[in-house]
Amino acid sequence: MRFAKGHGTGNDFVILPDPDGRLELPAALVAAICDRTAGLGGDGVLRVVRTAAAGLGAAEFESVGGGSADWFMDYRNADGSLAEMCGNGLRVYARYLVDVGLAAGPELVIGTRAGPRLATFEADGQITVQMGPAQVHGLGLATLGGRAYQGQVISVGNPHLACVLDEPVETVDLTAAPVLDPAQFPAGANVEVLRVTGEHRVQMRVHERGSGVTMSCGTGAVAAAVAAAAAAGEWQHGAERRWEVQVPGGLLAVTPSATASLLTGPAVIVATGELAAGWLATAAG
Amino acid sequence: MRFAKGHGTGNDFVILPDPDGRLELPAALVAAICDRTAGLGGDGVLRVVRTAAAGLGAAEFESVGGGSADWFMDYRNADGSLAEMCGNGLRVYARYLVDVGLAAGPELVIGTRAGPRLATFEADGQITVQMGPAQVHGLGLATLGGRAYQGQVISVGNPHLACVLDEPVETVDLTAAPVLDPAQFPAGANVEVLRVTGEHRVQMRVHERGSGVTMSCGTGAVAAAVAAAAAAGEWQHGAERRWEVQVPGGLLAVTPSATASLLTGPAVIVATGELAAGWLATAAG
Repeated sequence: MRFAKGHGTGNDFVILPDPDGRLELPAALVAAICDRTAGLGGDGVLRVVRTAAAGLGAAEFESVGGGSADWFMDYRNADGSLAEMCGNGLRVYARYLVDVGLAAGPELVIGTRAGPRLATFEADGQITVQMGPAQVHGLGLATLGGRAYQGQVISVGNPHLACVLDEPVETVDLTAAPVLDPAQFPAGANVEVLRVTGEHRVQMRVHERGSGVTMSCGTGAVAAAVAAAAAAGEWQHGAERRWEVQVPGGLLAVTPSATASLLTGPAVIVATGELAAGWLATAAG
Repeated sequence: MRFAKGHGTGNDFVILPDPDGRLELPAALVAAICDRTAGLGGDGVLRVVRTAAAGLGAAEFESVGGGSADWFMDYRNADGSLAEMCGNGLRVYARYLVDVGLAAGPELVIGTRAGPRLATFEADGQITVQMGPAQVHGLGLATLGGRAYQGQVISVGNPHLACVLDEPVETVDLTAAPVLDPAQFPAGANVEVLRVTGEHRVQMRVHERGSGVTMSCGTGAVAAAVAAAAAAGEWQHGAERRWEVQVPGGLLAVTPSATASLLTGPAVIVATGELAAGWLATAAG
């Protein structure tokens, strides 16, 4: 089984090329591959498969954007479960397709479980991806390290609570899972803490639902930019301005939007190779 | 740059084949390769180089065992610093050499900075490696999570404090670095907590000096077996018995000895591949 490994601002993925949809990918194998010591290690797996060969039913083919997207990003979380979309993963996916010649830039539509998404290769080598609409649903509370923080409840496809702070983001204890009001967040939420550090520039840290503290989170960066734009009074007026969002793993740029947010950042392929047959035989369970 | 990735009981390594000693391996590159999200990820790097091509001076060639060992395990810690020996790494190194046909089993002498070490391939696929002499230097104390633990001060080339407990090893808080008496441990120590769980069988957890809590530690497993043998009254009588040592990453077997301890365990090659040229160009600094 061939693979590549790549990352976007420290959010890292094992890429499994499977153009013709022949790969069996049970959850146990994904988890074994993503194991950071006994496997290759990664935050998730990106299976690279032609949309027409992905084994999708007619309705699913439509919903992922099969009509416009030759390639489907079959994204799996590190525990093997399916995931809809991942902004950092989408950039890495686009980089891989173009690097190996499976697709050509500078514009590329990729099918995802959240629908078709456009990836654009910028002149400086960064990649911009569509993140879909962002919505603000009012105020909410999270308890982090025993302290209560107020933030904006924001949906970027998935639920977020983005808290604008007056103090350095390093002061917040994110080690334990945030305590949230289950009535407000029945499925939990990613919690971002952010601080405005300059003109249209914020620094953020994030606790991702189910993953803990991570180096970067694409939807979290969008939520942070929305909260910052709301605090600046821009969001309410529909002004779509570009924000720089510093995450622990690097620098992203976000143009938050109620209709089509944009996320720009680096995407790096670190290595390519092949999983050892002997290891695969035991890892597959 | 070609690589393999492998692990022994969850202690994982990036293997860099360099038979003719042509590889430049500055500390910054090793650290970038071992970075678990922006690189490949590993506890260390094993450079696979012919002893004669390793660029060693005459005295060093002698001390690593160049006269008897065709291959030299050039082991680097994840921060790029040099390391003398690593029992889990040595098994993975031996597995790699035999897997790719650079050497033949079942017995193989490998040069290390701690001297030549014999690796023996067992019938069941496990590998036994020589760990050198172990010495007991009396009692010592470590404070772990605010609580004092008494243990045996043991040298396995590097310093250890191995504490035999009457309670489950999971109860010990190993998150913070152990507090040790600097007069007794001027260079710090690895601290093991262990419990006898059966006939010549212990379970252990370890806090490795400079690395924190790890899945496994070869010299730590030897120290744990020495402490258990001492508690059983065997060590004092020079009885060299085999102990099973359960570590978080798997099962090891140790025959502790004042002259030549043995460590047996699995070694797995997970993948082989090539580091991306573009990534290397930036990672090398």
